[in-house]
Amino acid sequence: MYRVDLNSDLGESFGNYTVGLDYEVIAHISSANVACGYHAGDPLVMEQTVLAARDAHVAVGAHPGFPDLMGFGRRNMSCSPREAKAYVKYQLGALMAFTKASGVRLQHCKPHGALYNMAAKDMDLALALAEAIAEVDKDIIFLVLANSNMAEAGKQLGLRVANEVFADRAYQADGTLVPRSKPGAVIHDTDEAIARTIRMVKEGKITAITGEEVPLKADSICVHGDNPSAVAFVRNIRARLIEEGVTIAPLSEIV
Amino acid sequence: MYRVDLNSDLGESFGNYTVGLDYEVIAHISSANVACGYHAGDPLVMEQTVLAARDAHVAVGAHPGFPDLMGFGRRNMSCSPREAKAYVKYQLGALMAFTKASGVRLQHCKPHGALYNMAAKDMDLALALAEAIAEVDKDIIFLVLANSNMAEAGKQLGLRVANEVFADRAYQADGTLVPRSKPGAVIHDTDEAIARTIRMVKEGKITAITGEEVPLKADSICVHGDNPSAVAFVRNIRARLIEEGVTIAPLSEIV
Amino acid sequence: MYRVDLNSDLGESFGNYTVGLDYEVIAHISSANVACGYHAGDPLVMEQTVLAARDAHVAVGAHPGFPDLMGFGRRNMSCSPREAKAYVKYQLGALMAFTKASGVRLQHCKPHGALYNMAAKDMDLALALAEAIAEVDKDIIFLVLANSNMAEAGKQLGLRVANEVFADRAYQADGTLVPRSKPGAVIHDTDEAIARTIRMVKEGKITAITGEEVPLKADSICVHGDNPSAVAFVRNIRARLIEEGVTIAPLSEIV
Amino acid sequence: MYRVDLNSDLGESFGNYTVGLDYEVIAHISSANVACGYHAGDPLVMEQTVLAARDAHVAVGAHPGFPDLMGFGRRNMSCSPREAKAYVKYQLGALMAFTKASGVRLQHCKPHGALYNMAAKDMDLALALAEAIAEVDKDIIFLVLANSNMAEAGKQLGLRVANEVFADRAYQADGTLVPRSKPGAVIHDTDEAIARTIRMVKEGKITAITGEEVPLKADSICVHGDNPSAVAFVRNIRARLIEEGVTIAPLSEIV
Repeated sequence: MYRVDLNSDLGESFGNYTVGLDYEVIAHISSANVACGYHAGDPLVMEQTVLAARDAHVAVGAHPGFPDLMGFGRRNMSCSPREAKAYVKYQLGALMAFTKASGVRLQHCKPHGALYNMAAKDMDLALALAEAIAEVDKDIIFLVLANSNMAEAGKQLGLRVANEVFADRAYQADGTLVPRSKPGAVIHDTDEAIARTIRMVKEGKITAITGEEVPLKADSICVHGDNPSAVAFVRNIRARLIEEGVTIAPLSEIV
Repeated sequence: MYRVDLNSDLGESFGNYTVGLDYEVIAHISSANVACGYHAGDPLVMEQTVLAARDAHVAVGAHPGFPDLMGFGRRNMSCSPREAKAYVKYQLGALMAFTKASGVRLQHCKPHGALYNMAAKDMDLALALAEAIAEVDKDIIFLVLANSNMAEAGKQLGLRVANEVFADRAYQADGTLVPRSKPGAVIHDTDEAIARTIRMVKEGKITAITGEEVPLKADSICVHGDNPSAVAFVRNIRARLIEEGVTIAPLSEIV
Repeated sequence: MYRVDLNSDLGESFGNYTVGLDYEVIAHISSANVACGYHAGDPLVMEQTVLAARDAHVAVGAHPGFPDLMGFGRRNMSCSPREAKAYVKYQLGALMAFTKASGVRLQHCKPHGALYNMAAKDMDLALALAEAIAEVDKDIIFLVLANSNMAEAGKQLGLRVANEVFADRAYQADGTLVPRSKPGAVIHDTDEAIARTIRMVKEGKITAITGEEVPLKADSICVHGDNPSAVAFVRNIRARLIEEGVTIAPLSEIV
Repeated sequence: MYRVDLNSDLGESFGNYTVGLDYEVIAHISSANVACGYHAGDPLVMEQTVLAARDAHVAVGAHPGFPDLMGFGRRNMSCSPREAKAYVKYQLGALMAFTKASGVRLQHCKPHGALYNMAAKDMDLALALAEAIAEVDKDIIFLVLANSNMAEAGKQLGLRVANEVFADRAYQADGTLVPRSKPGAVIHDTDEAIARTIRMVKEGKITAITGEEVPLKADSICVHGDNPSAVAFVRNIRARLIEEGVTIAPLSEIV
């Protein structure tokens, strides 16, 4: 039987600022990545998001980022691995206060934005993130870019690692993403994106931008709830996956 | 046998800024209140402080404050009880990541600065803080101003409550502190301060500024490590307490 | 000839967070209060807002607030007058960098949220804000709650003071606002609100909630651009004022 | 007649945190670089530092940095040139509120830490900083690493540019600094450091680490006030320069 997780970033509102159609997308996903107050989110938003996920039977994960609210955690920062590790521990713990109070487990940890992108390429940083998780709770699943340094770092630390894939992105022959700066990096045709995703889930393969068949195991598909068309896409891909006999399930039932 | 705890605020450094003689005072206290990143402290400082406390056999507590780094958490903020509760949960959780990673338990929670002073007088705020603790971990001891609303709120929520007293402060007939704005509020004579403290610990009594004998149970004495003379006072009061047959012990062995 | 200013809070977006229909409301107002990075706004937003105001021939003012991004500057903070004064100078200067670079003058300063409300009642704080303006540039108009301590403080410092009135708020016999906590504080009928405003502008009078005729000079009317119905109200009140022979003009042409 | 400026970073305290022997070093320098609240400093500290500089007849400059208080502005951040430009304008303006209020002119702008180091190597970023200055006030002197992209960018924008040199650093044959990661990058012998500095000031030459004679015009020497031995060095180099017939003068009298 085929299974895959649908994950989305939630709880990115802050104070008076509300973003994301959290309460619409939550009905269609199986895992929520909750911002932890460094690049987005605040304690009240975290509390509400954890409760909303619990009530929707969606698993909760941490989405720690760089301490850069003004840049939404999307700008590279030359934090040392030691700093990054401490920042991730801090954010994991902060979210765990709310999961504990709400009677749910913290299922996973997916680094956000620039921290995710940097750790995908930098083994020292990837190890620092994996160590942070291992030190706080060995049972937390490390949700990472498939075939990245993060996957390798998670394995080295003995963590359960889940591979995240992107429906709308082209892949290279080595299983890594085609950088956004290159032509063809983004798949704009929805049907093609969904068909590619189904193949990753059912066959564990993707056709690289250069034509090769590449093994790529999809544990979780990254989807978005930023706007109505993003939510429509989530509904669409979820329905198509189910039609294809794929069960949508949280990470804890997959890895 | 008489027992009392000596608590001090630690881990108040931030980034490039170092304050407090943490590594000197830690040798003489039994419980450390660790700042959690809102009014002071940062993840690296929290990590180092928890490790230093562990190595010195000093119990670790959280010292959550208002989100006011520029004002060091010393300025009243009209946060709603709901906001304050979420802020305390967030900070408790953040610190628990480090205690968990270091193999120690989070013993207690003592609100910082303006949050402490406001909650001492405002029952709704006091209840919010007690609820935050109860929701995160019922075993965390609530370290509060003796005879304040916080003590009452902690009892209502079924928490273990520890009474904090001040060696160098005068008390009113109702067991509350003489406000600093009033004459005689601060006891400047060290020997008198220590003698008063010993009496609180051994007899459970203090002489009010108006002459009455007031029952005042001292579970913990607040001491400071800001400067060399503060550290000298801690060494002094500790030695005198021991001479008087009082055992210095962490809160978890007292309440 | 009758004249009045229409002022609205603009530039409250921050980083990835966008709020307010700035580009819709700007066509209908004469003065913009621009957030300065403490409670809302960031340097890029400030720059864009100043340029948008310039291009729409709308005068630019500063809208300084407490350093409380998480609370949007709406929570009282017990900053000392000395702190508040320095915070206002800082924010005034920061905005002046953008007005200078854009070739426009900084017309006015209107304190934001809790800072506005506290200064309206606290003469020491009101004087601190007026001093901040006077020290940075004596020509900046102090836009204040009519009949408040801020108006008096501005006059004492020799500043040009502009009285702000609220179309949808009831007034007391002493010319101050009926607190929101009291029944009847808010006028919900749009036509009544507009009629009351026209009378303030043309006759300098308002009927108090207790029935008295109260003199109330309206230099500027506070309007909002938060949502489509708020913008519709601005369009409406502007049209009605013009029909009544009132010219909409920036503060610098009024006080 | 020989002239050179001695510049030092001041006003790096923040809230309850005090760093730097500002009031000792200020007696020996001619230009102060004042932190502007992003990586260090706060409005009260800025105000006090500007007043202290004025009273000591020391010229005031801005020391803008990245928005990274936790990292003290020392960590590279991948801000876009457009963001960096807006951040510098904001900080320049904020400081100008205090210089204006204190009756002094803002003499110069020296980027701080990672912003300085990145702009020295990145022409787009260097141009962004120069544009920020040019848009706020063309008379502000751009104090930059000698022979860096910042010097070139300042010239392109028509700014007055001042070359900063380091007494204790080795130079390469192209007039740039030997990176700290390489052996011999730092001159540890005080007399040698001072002798090299005097030669830069009087002859406009330095001997590169590879032996070549390199032209290097020193407009300003960077000194520090972090600790007593740094202050002693400032006193020492100042005395030696004066003995050698060099006048210590602010940048505005040099470039």
